[in-house]
Amino acid sequence: MAVPNAIDRLVALLSKLPGVGKKSAVRMAYHILDNESSYARALADELAVFHQAIRRCSVCGGFTETDPCPICSDSSRDHCLICVVERAQDLRVIEESREFNGVFHVLGGLIAPLEGVGPGDLAIAKLFARLNGHNVREIILALNPTVEGDTTALYLQKVLSNYPVEITRLASGMPVGGNIEYIDKLTLSRSFRGRLKI
Amino acid sequence: MAVPNAIDRLVALLSKLPGVGKKSAVRMAYHILDNESSYARALADELAVFHQAIRRCSVCGGFTETDPCPICSDSSRDHCLICVVERAQDLRVIEESREFNGVFHVLGGLIAPLEGVGPGDLAIAKLFARLNGHNVREIILALNPTVEGDTTALYLQKVLSNYPVEITRLASGMPVGGNIEYIDKLTLSRSFRGRLKI
Repeated sequence: MAVPNAIDRLVALLSKLPGVGKKSAVRMAYHILDNESSYARALADELAVFHQAIRRCSVCGGFTETDPCPICSDSSRDHCLICVVERAQDLRVIEESREFNGVFHVLGGLIAPLEGVGPGDLAIAKLFARLNGHNVREIILALNPTVEGDTTALYLQKVLSNYPVEITRLASGMPVGGNIEYIDKLTLSRSFRGRLKI
Repeated sequence: MAVPNAIDRLVALLSKLPGVGKKSAVRMAYHILDNESSYARALADELAVFHQAIRRCSVCGGFTETDPCPICSDSSRDHCLICVVERAQDLRVIEESREFNGVFHVLGGLIAPLEGVGPGDLAIAKLFARLNGHNVREIILALNPTVEGDTTALYLQKVLSNYPVEITRLASGMPVGGNIEYIDKLTLSRSFRGRLKI
């Protein structure tokens, strides 16, 4: 096909992004061509230094430009309250909600025996180290309500049972704006079990 | 929010791509971080030279790395048969179908009075120049079956009527695999008007 190789090469790279198929990648490549070249240059400059600019925080495991990260080094936050998340993306969502003023701990995954991910592959030893060093009051498990999330929560609850720390998990139930008619049985069952006195 | 600025800057740039909202852009940025840095570098390298590597073909107006483009300089193609398309993307799709062995002409848009796009904004004068120079037999208008596409086709048919050239337009009707029950009235009407003897 007589189409510039540079376009095909860019399309091949763009289609590796999550949620981007061949057609979307083609659309993006032509969009970039139709735009000012300054946009492509800005994107290129940002990508070229992206991995150098960002590292993992040595304390919580989140992405950061300084180590420790701004959250871990913020003395106005409650360091006795640790929110355990699967991935750094989840940390971002919780930060955006402004619902939480403690600190985080990124596990880097969930226990998934079928995919060969065991407890040893997650940052659990690091979590223990944080517990030993500080006077942690509560650990909030902010893990997805999926089989892997449930398994990991159960495992953490078990291995943390010897520590004088309260372990909680984010409530699971009907989303705000949801409709009982369309909710699945498992979610409805959780909503019943987790019902609150009003 | 205590999230690295480099991530926010990349997210802002990625959300300018077509079909990419804030959430998809965040997902892409973290995907890039989770990947090897070689991927980000490859994408950066490709983008940095993208606009320099690709220019418009001085004959057909399509994107190319050499001028004239491989299609326009290919003597095995039928240069007496010109397929007129709105954008270079459409040229790509037709090339991929391997349905056409003539040459192309990219208009660079469609007549859209409401958006202030008139015939003078399109590469129509260039099309006339190609007609004058060569022994063109047929012009195929491969324009979208939309109001703008229809308007542009009508305009081209009118201004080309003095030239000894056949003007055709891609058939419009039911897509293959479509269902008469769900087809809209306009498409059905076109299918009737364009019916073929079997």
